[in-house]
Amino acid sequence: MRLYDYLDSGNGYKVRLLLAHLAIPYELVEVDILAGESRTEQFLAMNPNGRIPVIETDDCRTLAESNAILFYLAEGTNYLPEPRIDRARVLQWMFFEQYSHEPYIATSRFWLRHVEATTERERLLESKKEGGYAALGVMESHLADADFLVAGRYTIADIALYAYTHVADQGGFDLDGYPAVRRWLGRVAAQPGFIPMLPGRGSES
Amino acid sequence: MRLYDYLDSGNGYKVRLLLAHLAIPYELVEVDILAGESRTEQFLAMNPNGRIPVIETDDCRTLAESNAILFYLAEGTNYLPEPRIDRARVLQWMFFEQYSHEPYIATSRFWLRHVEATTERERLLESKKEGGYAALGVMESHLADADFLVAGRYTIADIALYAYTHVADQGGFDLDGYPAVRRWLGRVAAQPGFIPMLPGRGSES
Repeated sequence: MRLYDYLDSGNGYKVRLLLAHLAIPYELVEVDILAGESRTEQFLAMNPNGRIPVIETDDCRTLAESNAILFYLAEGTNYLPEPRIDRARVLQWMFFEQYSHEPYIATSRFWLRHVEATTERERLLESKKEGGYAALGVMESHLADADFLVAGRYTIADIALYAYTHVADQGGFDLDGYPAVRRWLGRVAAQPGFIPMLPGRGSES
Repeated sequence: MRLYDYLDSGNGYKVRLLLAHLAIPYELVEVDILAGESRTEQFLAMNPNGRIPVIETDDCRTLAESNAILFYLAEGTNYLPEPRIDRARVLQWMFFEQYSHEPYIATSRFWLRHVEATTERERLLESKKEGGYAALGVMESHLADADFLVAGRYTIADIALYAYTHVADQGGFDLDGYPAVRRWLGRVAAQPGFIPMLPGRGSES
């Protein structure tokens, strides 16, 4: 197994976290997305959409899209429930993550970390606030009555949402008003085999 | 089975199209999203994210997110391949659809159909052009060598991408430069049990 990844990416972290839980060995190939390394001819041959993470399996098949990779790796393990409705609800939360959460919270975080501060950047950041807090609100209302997102236990839905929620502050989002989300973050970080996003840092890095 | 839907929604059409292929009877409950009917307390109890489509199964379980609903309905049918890597590739295309295609092409279409023409709307539409054409380019390069998106046959990945691609012109996108995409649109519309997006209209409506 080979993982093409950029270490500051929450989408990549999802895959690294699940691989750690499953104790699957893999070769990490770092891709400097800021230097255009995910847009080279060689990379686009693996993923024409030019995004990390991508995995290459031992029989040389490539797979892109972080949440599709999570599903692929989790099938048949404890991280994906068996009942059909629960599997679908895991997917429901993962599609929610990519459509209603990531474009606001992760994008804001990326701009704050990697894009020069300008009036235009501030305007864009402001335009992301409402959607990001709406997504956190949806999570808060669900987690007020549930320890985990689906089926009362830790699944890849939690991994998918944890990745950027636990660093939401780095995107300018304040979790003070989201106590159920913060308690859930603690439950995720307490799972056996948990690893932080960046090597050598704590769970808040 | 009950489907909460807005008939002009491509996300809803995905579900209606698969239900037609599977010949599953259902009760359609129309939700006027323009009148705020997807934000009522009753609706938010089904989907706190306030979006259609939502299905309610015969045993009263609700499920949201169009592509999660497709996966739920397709499990065990010909519309979702069995091999693990193919299932994951179906998901890869469905996550691509929600992250890299829908926010550009479907959003532009919604604005053009339902939002007053202003300078601001024109600016927003222009900002969606590059991303939308990039998504069509990814599809074009893949479909140049493949009849369908995954495993050489019609799956829910095709249904998910067909929904807004076949009405891309309504979002201001010109498919003239995408001949492989246009041929694929024809193959989808020729599938047994195919239904158009809006009742009583052709496949281009």
